[in-house]
Amino acid sequence: VTQTQDGVVRAGIVVTGTEVITGTISDRNGPWISQELGRLGVEVAHILVVADRPDDLEAALRFLGDEGVDLVVTSGGLGPTADDLTAEIVARFAGRELILDAPMEAKIAEILAGFARRLGFDVEALREANRKQAMIPEGATTIDPAGTAPGLVVPVDHGPTVIVMPGPPRELHAMWPQALETDAVREVLGRAEPYGGTMLRLFGVPESEIAKSLLEIEGEGVSLEELEITTCLRRGELEIEVRHRPGAEEALEALIAGIEARHGRFLFSRDGSTIDEQLADLLEGHKIATAESCTGGLLAARLTERDGASAYVQGGAVTYSNEAKTEVLGVPAEMIAEHGAVSNEVAEAMADGALERFEADIAVGITGIAGPAGGTEEKPVGYVCVCVKLSSGEKIARDPVIPGGRADIRERSALLGMHLVRRLLLGEDFPL
Amino acid sequence: VTQTQDGVVRAGIVVTGTEVITGTISDRNGPWISQELGRLGVEVAHILVVADRPDDLEAALRFLGDEGVDLVVTSGGLGPTADDLTAEIVARFAGRELILDAPMEAKIAEILAGFARRLGFDVEALREANRKQAMIPEGATTIDPAGTAPGLVVPVDHGPTVIVMPGPPRELHAMWPQALETDAVREVLGRAEPYGGTMLRLFGVPESEIAKSLLEIEGEGVSLEELEITTCLRRGELEIEVRHRPGAEEALEALIAGIEARHGRFLFSRDGSTIDEQLADLLEGHKIATAESCTGGLLAARLTERDGASAYVQGGAVTYSNEAKTEVLGVPAEMIAEHGAVSNEVAEAMADGALERFEADIAVGITGIAGPAGGTEEKPVGYVCVCVKLSSGEKIARDPVIPGGRADIRERSALLGMHLVRRLLLGEDFPL
Repeated sequence: VTQTQDGVVRAGIVVTGTEVITGTISDRNGPWISQELGRLGVEVAHILVVADRPDDLEAALRFLGDEGVDLVVTSGGLGPTADDLTAEIVARFAGRELILDAPMEAKIAEILAGFARRLGFDVEALREANRKQAMIPEGATTIDPAGTAPGLVVPVDHGPTVIVMPGPPRELHAMWPQALETDAVREVLGRAEPYGGTMLRLFGVPESEIAKSLLEIEGEGVSLEELEITTCLRRGELEIEVRHRPGAEEALEALIAGIEARHGRFLFSRDGSTIDEQLADLLEGHKIATAESCTGGLLAARLTERDGASAYVQGGAVTYSNEAKTEVLGVPAEMIAEHGAVSNEVAEAMADGALERFEADIAVGITGIAGPAGGTEEKPVGYVCVCVKLSSGEKIARDPVIPGGRADIRERSALLGMHLVRRLLLGEDFPL
Repeated sequence: VTQTQDGVVRAGIVVTGTEVITGTISDRNGPWISQELGRLGVEVAHILVVADRPDDLEAALRFLGDEGVDLVVTSGGLGPTADDLTAEIVARFAGRELILDAPMEAKIAEILAGFARRLGFDVEALREANRKQAMIPEGATTIDPAGTAPGLVVPVDHGPTVIVMPGPPRELHAMWPQALETDAVREVLGRAEPYGGTMLRLFGVPESEIAKSLLEIEGEGVSLEELEITTCLRRGELEIEVRHRPGAEEALEALIAGIEARHGRFLFSRDGSTIDEQLADLLEGHKIATAESCTGGLLAARLTERDGASAYVQGGAVTYSNEAKTEVLGVPAEMIAEHGAVSNEVAEAMADGALERFEADIAVGITGIAGPAGGTEEKPVGYVCVCVKLSSGEKIARDPVIPGGRADIRERSALLGMHLVRRLLLGEDFPL
């Protein structure tokens, strides 16, 4: 048995589902629960993924009990079918009988009757399933279902409190707050000291540079051991997540100052805001259009991901063929013949065409070689020309060779376009 | 200790990395390894995610050992820094000393010298890291590094064989085949009976219908208990993965026939091929163009994901604003005024405009209300009009109300476009 440190509340997460363990889908619930618990100051020790096999689920719970965690969260296995066994296994783990919760049975019956009316099936056929989903471990607190499966909070004598949640993310997210409000969970969370911290985001600086900077900052006497620093390359940006217990605020400030001094130009977010969020703000009052070749619509799709994008996105053209570049965006055929479809000249002409065709005041032109074929010595796979231009004529352009496979090159090219839009709108034109 | 069933080889996977356990990134290695092992007939019992804490990693290994698995695969924790401890912990678990592998030290030194030359840093500073990465458990087989970290295959007396792999997916994928070729792993895999099976994919049929069909098929005497059936809604399609041990081929055939009889129209893949793969084949010799409003470029981006897409993708227009629909695609402003921007008329006019502007022979027009704002009683959020049209004038059109949030509605709309392209090219126009 691992001993729990003083003041540190540890948790384990058990995700059930055969489609997760066979690798058919990736688990989204473990990371989500982990982030939620992290925010509350709970340290997650283990995330276990198990199939819908009772023995494996029980073994996972026993393991977490033996590890001495204070809290266990399970997701999945609460459905009406025979292989949904979480409630039963948790009851066994907690040493409690399964009993019928009559009010919950009535509540589920009502939900099912609603489905039956709308979908026109026979509610009688569901009576068994209904009853199964209302069987709960004695002494457990139920969480109202967001679908048809109630959640549970189950106290365990001399063991961790267990939160039992359904697998569909929408239901889990909707039911989570109520689970946190139960007495048993509040008691555990009350012992956790919330973390402080922040998330820094950088674009255009390699991870190894940050590792070097961290060593230097430590060498200057900043006590980084008080901070939990996680660096992570994600979608072409470098994220530095910093968490700390109360009392390490000074170290955090010193760390941020050290990163700022060394990589200030590349540090675009000090508060965790994303480039997408920043662009949504910066583009207020603007009209943006895109002209994409190798990215094939990825930039337009990303710009329109956010609700409210129609206020500033006019549209875009995906001009994959040379004829489309000429026909749709007015890129002169002679320019393509002279400089090649992948060239700074064509990227700018694409931006010009988008400005005009979409009546925009800012436009992004992207043309490049996403590969795997089509590279030459002069213009290898990954060579991408990006030009962002205002209707005033002001522009910012880059033509890096982006490493990685086709998907990486496409995604990074669109991201580069996003960051160049930010820089042009902020008037920060400096080398990448 | 769980007893292993006869002929069933079970494995556990341990993924290390603080950024995975805090939920900063999702684990891609667990599902990948799980699918690889599944193909080899190995049943994965548990995937454990642990932070870079030695005690937690050791606890995870002990748990899997106690569970009686035959094989353990770890990923991550092989880097040069002090918190990369996997080799040491695995050595302790295996009861073996860590010893210096001199040829491996030389091999890593050579790789690092190459980096140093290209990046211009001092190779002497890396000597310690180099030595650390060449320390291996006595009796282990090393796997050549794809980055700088070698992999390991470590036999454990009276315990599972442990495959130790690095965390970066590219390195893991490159080194995996060599790990499978080691004597210790071959011995374990030799005891596994490979699964048979297939993957069926359906579009346009709800999961509950399939559950009902499975019960009916079972009621007709097909012994489905011989099959491991996993149904999963993914990206708007329903996947039915069927795995079985040798001898259940007849049950598999009967299952497929039963699904075919009930849902043949919606069953677009019997061999696991994706809609993306099928469209790539079907579009050979065609020129496709897209005209997107609510999907904002997602369809164009998806069509151009595949290498070789430039052979059939001409391009596309993202016309988010009404003016862009008129200016770029020639949709009459009066049509928009009369029927609304989200209407079957406009979807078709957008397809017509794309056919003409991009000189294509097949085009997709999509216009809809992705929400969360903009819905009305008549045209609620999720209402989407999709029209696919050939230059011959033949067309296929649908206007469903798609449930879910903004991201779901956008993705499903693009997917509907893909499936309608398939049906039009195959001449299969029937109700969705």
